[in-house]
Amino acid sequence: MRPLVSTEGPTGALPWYRPLADEVTVFTHCHRAGLPVLLKGPTGCGKTRFVEHMALRLERPLVTVACHDDTAAADLIGRHLILGGDTVWNDGPALRALRQGAILYLDEIAEARPDVLAVLHPLADHRRTIFVDRIGEAVGAQPGFLLVASYNPGYQRGLKELKPSTRQRFVALSFQHPAAEVEQEILSGETGIDPARALRLARLAHRLRQLEHLGLGDAVSTRLLVDAARLMVGGLEARQACRVAIVGPLSDDRDVVEAAHDLVALAF
Amino acid sequence: MRPLVSTEGPTGALPWYRPLADEVTVFTHCHRAGLPVLLKGPTGCGKTRFVEHMALRLERPLVTVACHDDTAAADLIGRHLILGGDTVWNDGPALRALRQGAILYLDEIAEARPDVLAVLHPLADHRRTIFVDRIGEAVGAQPGFLLVASYNPGYQRGLKELKPSTRQRFVALSFQHPAAEVEQEILSGETGIDPARALRLARLAHRLRQLEHLGLGDAVSTRLLVDAARLMVGGLEARQACRVAIVGPLSDDRDVVEAAHDLVALAF
Amino acid sequence: MRPLVSTEGPTGALPWYRPLADEVTVFTHCHRAGLPVLLKGPTGCGKTRFVEHMALRLERPLVTVACHDDTAAADLIGRHLILGGDTVWNDGPALRALRQGAILYLDEIAEARPDVLAVLHPLADHRRTIFVDRIGEAVGAQPGFLLVASYNPGYQRGLKELKPSTRQRFVALSFQHPAAEVEQEILSGETGIDPARALRLARLAHRLRQLEHLGLGDAVSTRLLVDAARLMVGGLEARQACRVAIVGPLSDDRDVVEAAHDLVALAF
Amino acid sequence: MRPLVSTEGPTGALPWYRPLADEVTVFTHCHRAGLPVLLKGPTGCGKTRFVEHMALRLERPLVTVACHDDTAAADLIGRHLILGGDTVWNDGPALRALRQGAILYLDEIAEARPDVLAVLHPLADHRRTIFVDRIGEAVGAQPGFLLVASYNPGYQRGLKELKPSTRQRFVALSFQHPAAEVEQEILSGETGIDPARALRLARLAHRLRQLEHLGLGDAVSTRLLVDAARLMVGGLEARQACRVAIVGPLSDDRDVVEAAHDLVALAF
Amino acid sequence: MRPLVSTEGPTGALPWYRPLADEVTVFTHCHRAGLPVLLKGPTGCGKTRFVEHMALRLERPLVTVACHDDTAAADLIGRHLILGGDTVWNDGPALRALRQGAILYLDEIAEARPDVLAVLHPLADHRRTIFVDRIGEAVGAQPGFLLVASYNPGYQRGLKELKPSTRQRFVALSFQHPAAEVEQEILSGETGIDPARALRLARLAHRLRQLEHLGLGDAVSTRLLVDAARLMVGGLEARQACRVAIVGPLSDDRDVVEAAHDLVALAF
Amino acid sequence: MRPLVSTEGPTGALPWYRPLADEVTVFTHCHRAGLPVLLKGPTGCGKTRFVEHMALRLERPLVTVACHDDTAAADLIGRHLILGGDTVWNDGPALRALRQGAILYLDEIAEARPDVLAVLHPLADHRRTIFVDRIGEAVGAQPGFLLVASYNPGYQRGLKELKPSTRQRFVALSFQHPAAEVEQEILSGETGIDPARALRLARLAHRLRQLEHLGLGDAVSTRLLVDAARLMVGGLEARQACRVAIVGPLSDDRDVVEAAHDLVALAF
Repeated sequence: MRPLVSTEGPTGALPWYRPLADEVTVFTHCHRAGLPVLLKGPTGCGKTRFVEHMALRLERPLVTVACHDDTAAADLIGRHLILGGDTVWNDGPALRALRQGAILYLDEIAEARPDVLAVLHPLADHRRTIFVDRIGEAVGAQPGFLLVASYNPGYQRGLKELKPSTRQRFVALSFQHPAAEVEQEILSGETGIDPARALRLARLAHRLRQLEHLGLGDAVSTRLLVDAARLMVGGLEARQACRVAIVGPLSDDRDVVEAAHDLVALAF
Repeated sequence: MRPLVSTEGPTGALPWYRPLADEVTVFTHCHRAGLPVLLKGPTGCGKTRFVEHMALRLERPLVTVACHDDTAAADLIGRHLILGGDTVWNDGPALRALRQGAILYLDEIAEARPDVLAVLHPLADHRRTIFVDRIGEAVGAQPGFLLVASYNPGYQRGLKELKPSTRQRFVALSFQHPAAEVEQEILSGETGIDPARALRLARLAHRLRQLEHLGLGDAVSTRLLVDAARLMVGGLEARQACRVAIVGPLSDDRDVVEAAHDLVALAF
Repeated sequence: MRPLVSTEGPTGALPWYRPLADEVTVFTHCHRAGLPVLLKGPTGCGKTRFVEHMALRLERPLVTVACHDDTAAADLIGRHLILGGDTVWNDGPALRALRQGAILYLDEIAEARPDVLAVLHPLADHRRTIFVDRIGEAVGAQPGFLLVASYNPGYQRGLKELKPSTRQRFVALSFQHPAAEVEQEILSGETGIDPARALRLARLAHRLRQLEHLGLGDAVSTRLLVDAARLMVGGLEARQACRVAIVGPLSDDRDVVEAAHDLVALAF
Repeated sequence: MRPLVSTEGPTGALPWYRPLADEVTVFTHCHRAGLPVLLKGPTGCGKTRFVEHMALRLERPLVTVACHDDTAAADLIGRHLILGGDTVWNDGPALRALRQGAILYLDEIAEARPDVLAVLHPLADHRRTIFVDRIGEAVGAQPGFLLVASYNPGYQRGLKELKPSTRQRFVALSFQHPAAEVEQEILSGETGIDPARALRLARLAHRLRQLEHLGLGDAVSTRLLVDAARLMVGGLEARQACRVAIVGPLSDDRDVVEAAHDLVALAF
Repeated sequence: MRPLVSTEGPTGALPWYRPLADEVTVFTHCHRAGLPVLLKGPTGCGKTRFVEHMALRLERPLVTVACHDDTAAADLIGRHLILGGDTVWNDGPALRALRQGAILYLDEIAEARPDVLAVLHPLADHRRTIFVDRIGEAVGAQPGFLLVASYNPGYQRGLKELKPSTRQRFVALSFQHPAAEVEQEILSGETGIDPARALRLARLAHRLRQLEHLGLGDAVSTRLLVDAARLMVGGLEARQACRVAIVGPLSDDRDVVEAAHDLVALAF
Repeated sequence: MRPLVSTEGPTGALPWYRPLADEVTVFTHCHRAGLPVLLKGPTGCGKTRFVEHMALRLERPLVTVACHDDTAAADLIGRHLILGGDTVWNDGPALRALRQGAILYLDEIAEARPDVLAVLHPLADHRRTIFVDRIGEAVGAQPGFLLVASYNPGYQRGLKELKPSTRQRFVALSFQHPAAEVEQEILSGETGIDPARALRLARLAHRLRQLEHLGLGDAVSTRLLVDAARLMVGGLEARQACRVAIVGPLSDDRDVVEAAHDLVALAF
C-alpha cells in the first residue's frame, strides 16, 4: 500500500509582499525553531498572502486546509479509498505536509471542531510525529515542516474560541489594518491603480473604520479596497465601484449603507 | 479516471429582460475582472432570471446550485461513484463550472452551512483554484468562470447570516421592487396580459407593500403578480386570480387576508 | 442505465366528491397554466381526497409523497441502487412524476426540511426542469405535470412554517370545515348512513367546534365523523361510536372529555 | 426478488383474559370496519395482553413493533439486504402485516418520531395501501389487516405527544386501573395465588394509588402486583416480595419508599 | 447462515463475596421466577461483583453490556457482517444470552437511550422472546436466562432517569454502603490488608460520608478504600495512599480536598 | 483473521525529567498494583512528558490516544477493515496496549464522550479484561499494562466533567506549576538557555500568574516559557520572544495584552 503523494502550493517567483511589522523576522525564527505559528487578525488583512509569501521565501511547499465545522480527522490525516478493487491509503494534507517538510496552513482554525484539532496536538509540540492508527505508522515531520494557523479574534468573540490547550501550542503573531500610506502602496502594488486614487481609497477606508457607531470596525478590510481598485482600473466609475465593492459587502442596514455612501461621495 | 463533464444551463436566444438599474453594467465589469458577485434582494424580484439573462448575454454556460442546510462539500466539488465495478470520479457543479469557464450560481447562499462555503473561498479570491484532495488535482478556473450568489437580506435577518469572511469576498449588487410602470412592463412582457390589467396588478402590489402594519413588505413580489396575470390570461376571473395567486401565498392571518381582499376588491 | 418507471395512483371510475367552494375551477386553471397549487386547511378536511378526485378528473397519474423530517433530497429525486452487481439509477417520485406528466402531491409539505424543498424550486417556477447531478441529466416536465402540496396553517403555528421563498411559488387554495348540510351530505355519500343520523353527527361536530374554551377548534374534522358513522352503520351503538371515534381521538384531558361526552349524550 | 415472508405472534389456545369494560366489543367492530385502534392507558395495565388476546380471538397473526426514537421508516417498511452477492428485498413488519392480513401493533407509538409515523398514514385511512418506492410496488392490505397502537397519555404529558394528524386517524379506547375485585381475579388467574393474598395485594395497590401526595398515581400498575404475586407463589416472604417487586420499581425517593413500606406492613 | 455463539463470563471457583443484606435470597427467587432484576445503588458499592458472584453460584454464563449513549439496538441484538464475501449474521450479547440461558447484565442501564431499551421489553415480561426482523427468527429464552441491570439513583438525579415503562419491568434491589465492620471484612478479604488498618480505612470512609456539607455522600465508595488498601499492602505510605486513591478521585475543589486531607491525617 | 500488532511510543535513552513532587513514586506503586492513574493539572505543566518518562523508566511501550468528542468506541477497541477483498480485524490502541502490556495513555480524557469511556471500565477495575463482541474474544491485559489518563480540572469547570463512575476508577495525581527555581531548572534543561535568562522567564511567569484580575491563572504554563526560551536561544530578541510566545497565545483582550507587555518590559 503506497500512499499517494502530491505537491501543491505556490511555485514561481517570490510575489510582491509589503511587510506590516516584524512578521517576517518572527516567522523565520519560528520556522528555524520548529515552533507552530498562529496568525491573528481580521478578515482580509492579508494573512493568506503572507503565508504564501513566506512559503516561497523559505522555499517550502505550502499545504492549505480551509477549516470548517465538518472537517473530520480523516480529512486532515487521510483515509482508505477503494481503487480498482484494491484498498489504497490516501494521505490527507497533514501527512502530505509532514512527508514533504511543507508548511501546513490551517486557514480559520477556530472553525474546526476542537476535537479534530486535538488530533494535531502531537505535531504542535516537541513530538512532531503523528501515529496513524489505520496504517500502523508513525509519521514524523521532515525538516522544514511547520504548522501555521490563522484566526480572527474579533469576529470569533462569543462564538467560536480556540481551546487554550490548542492555542497555547502556537507562537502568536498579530495583524492589524495598515496605515493609510502602507495601504496605498499595497493597492498600487496589487492592482496597478494610480497613487492618487489609491490614496483616496485608503483614506476612505480609514474614515469608515473610524465611524465606530456604524459597527464596521475590523470589517473594512484591505481586500475590499483591492476589489474596488480593480473595478476602477477596469473602467467602472469610482463611486459605483466603491458602492458595490466596499459598501455593499459590508452591510444590509439602510442607515449604515447611507452613511457609507456619503463618505464615498466625499472621497470621489 | 476521467471525470464526467456535463453541459447544463440556458441555450437559445437571449430572453426578454427588463433591467432595473445599473446591474448589467456592474455584472459585466465584475465578470471581466473575475470578481465574484452577490445579488442581494427579496424573494421573487428576478435574481434568477437576471443570472440566466447574463449567462446568455456573456455566452457562458450556467451551473446552478440550490443551496440548503444539507449541501455537503462533496455536493459542490464531486465524489467517487462505483460504476460497473470501477470507481469513477464525478465532478460536482463547482468543478464542472471551473472546467467550462461557466457561471457558477449559488442560489440562496445563506442557506448553506458556513463551513461548506469555506470550501469555495479559494475560488472567490485571487487564487481562483481549488485543490481537490480526493483526486490529488488542483483545478483552476478556465477563462470566463465567475462565482455568483443570491441572498435575501430581509428574510434572513436574525436567522441565517452570511459570515463576513464569506460575504466580503463578493461584490454586492442590490435588487429592489421595481416602480409600478416597470412592473407593468414586466407583467406584459412575461405573460402577454393587456397593459390596463397589468397596471392594475402593479398598483395593487404597490398598495399592499405600503400597508406596513400588515407586515407584508418585501413579500409582495413580482413573481406573485406574474402568477396572477397568467391565471387571468388563462381565463380565471381577476379577483379570484388575485385571491389565490397573491393573497393566499402571502399569509394565513385572518386579518391580513381580509385587508388584502379589500384591496383586491378596490383594484378590480 | 435505464430508470425504472412505475405507475401509481388511483384508477377506475371518478369517485364521489362533494366540492366545498370553487376549488375545482381554480385547480383546473392552475393545471392548465402549470402553476403549482398549495392546499391549506385543517387535518381531516378532505385535502387528500380532493387531490385524488382531481387526478382522476384531469386523467393524470398521481404520485404522493408523505413529507417528514427525514425526507432526503434523494427520496424525492432518486438514487443509485446496486442490483445484480450493477449500479442502477432508481427514479424518485419527483422524477417519476415529471416523466409521466403526473400530479406530484407533497402531503404535509411543512413537515419536510426547508432545504429539501429547495431542491424542488426549479420545478415550481418557469423552469419546470430539474438538473440531476448524479445522472448528468436535465429532466423536464412532460405535459400535464403539476406540483401540489398540502399544509395545515393552524396546526403549524409556532412550529413549522413554510419558508416564504417556497410558499410563494404556489397558488394557494383554502379549505374550511363544511356547513352542517354539506357535511351531512358527505357522511351519507361516504358511509351510507341514513340522513337523520348523519345530520345529528354534523350538528354534534358543529357544537363541538363552537366550544372555543375547549380548544378543539379545527381538530373536529369531517374524518372523525366519517369514522363514527362507519361504526354506527356496522352496528355499534351511537353514543359508544361517538365516544371512541370522535371524543377519544380529540383529547386526553378529563374536563374536555367530559364536556364532549355531555354533548354526545345530547345528540343521541 | 421475492420478499421473505415470516409468521410471528401468538399461537395455541385462547389465553385467559379478563375484560375491563367494552373493549372487546369496540375492537371487534373496528376490525370489521377496518378502522385503526389506539389503546390509551398507563404502563402495565394490560394493553399488550389485550392485543394478544384479540389477535387470537379474531384469528389473525400479530406483528408487534416496539416504537422508539430510532425507528426509521425502513424498520417499518423494509429494506434491501445483500445476501450471497445478490440484493434481496426484505419486508419490514408493516409490509409483512399487510400481506398476511395481520394485526400490526405499534407499541408505545408516541415514542416514534412523527415523521416515521407519517409513512403509515396511507394505511390508516381509506387507502389501506402503501406505495413502496424502493421496490416500485403498491402493497394493499389483505382482508383482516388492522393497525393498532398503544399510548400512555399521563406519562407522555409535556414530553412526547402524538401529532393530531396521526392521532385522529385512530378510534381511541381508554384503559384504566381495574377495580380491586377485578384486579384480585386477574392476579389469581395469572399467577395461581390464593384469593386472600390476591385481595390483599389488590387493596395495597388501591391504597398506594390513593396517596396522591406521593405522586405514584398511574404508576402502581397491575403488572407490579403480578410480579409480587409470582414471587410469593415461588416462596418469597410477602413483605419482602412487595418491597422488591412493588415499592422498589416505583421510586428512589426515601420518603416515598418509607411511606410505601408502611402500607406494605399494614397489608401483610 | 449460522449465528456465531460465544461463551463469556466468569469461570472457576466461587469467588469470595460478603452479602450485605438479603440480596442473595431475592436474586435467587427472581431467577427461579424469571423476573428481571434491577440493582440500585451508588458507584463502587459492589453491584458488578455481586452479579459475577450470582452467575457462578447459579452456574449460568454471564454476558455483560456496558450501556452508553451510543449503544444501538444492533449492539444488543446483532448484525450482519461480511466475511469472505458472504453475509454472516452475528448474534449480539442479548441473543447470545438468550440462546445460552445466560444472565444478561446491562451495566449502568440509565446511560442507554430509552428507545434502545424498548427493544428489550419483550424479554422483560411474560413473553421472554424477541422477534429479530433481520433474520426472520423469534428467539426465545433458554432455561436459566435472566435479565439484570444496574442503576445509580443518586448520581442519575436530574440527568438520566430510567423510563417508568422500562423500570417497572424489573424487581428492584437496593444496595447501600456497608457498616464499618462489614467494610473492614471486605477490605481484608479482597486485599489481604491487616484488620487494624482495614478498620481505620473503613472509619475514615464513614467520617467522610458524614461530612454532608462536603457533598461527597454516596461518592465515598468501597472501591476507593480497596484501591487505597491495595497501595498500602504494596508498600505505599498510608497517608500518601489515602490522598491519591481516596481524596484525589473524589474532588478537585480545594476546600473539599483540604478537609478530606485533615481527616486522612487523623486516621493514620 | 490475525490482528495487526504495532509497536509505538518512545525508544532510546531515558530523557531528562525534573520531578515536581512524589509523582514518580506513586506512579510506580500504581503500576505494580495495576491501578489506573489519573494525572490532574493545567495545560502545559508537563503531564505528557511525565508519562513518556515513566514509560521509558518502567520499560513499557506507550500507546497514546488524544481524546475528543468524536472518538468512537471502535477508535479505541478496533474495527474490521477490508483489505484485498478480505475482512481483516484491526486492533485499536486499547487492544494493542493490552496485548503488549503497554501503558495506555488517554490524553485529555474529559474530552471523550462518557459513553465511550464506559467501554474501558472493565480495564479499569479488577477485571482487566475486555470482551470484544465483534471478534468474539476476551482480551486480557498482559503483565505491565496500565491505564493512564490526563485531565485539566480548572479548564474543564462548568464544561466537561469526568463522570464519577469513570473518575473513581483511577488513582489521582495532582500537578501544579513548579516553584520559580524548579522552573528555571526545567528551562535550562530543556532548551539550554543560560540560568540568568531562565530565571527572568520563570519570575515573569510567576508575576503573570499572580495578577489574578487578569484571569490568566493556570494558563501561564511552563510550555509557553519553553517556547520563549527556545526563540531566545535561536537569536530572537527577548521582549519580542516573550510577546509572541507568551503574551500572544494567552489573550486577545487589549487590556490584558498591554498589562502583560508591561511585565515583559520589566523582566527584560
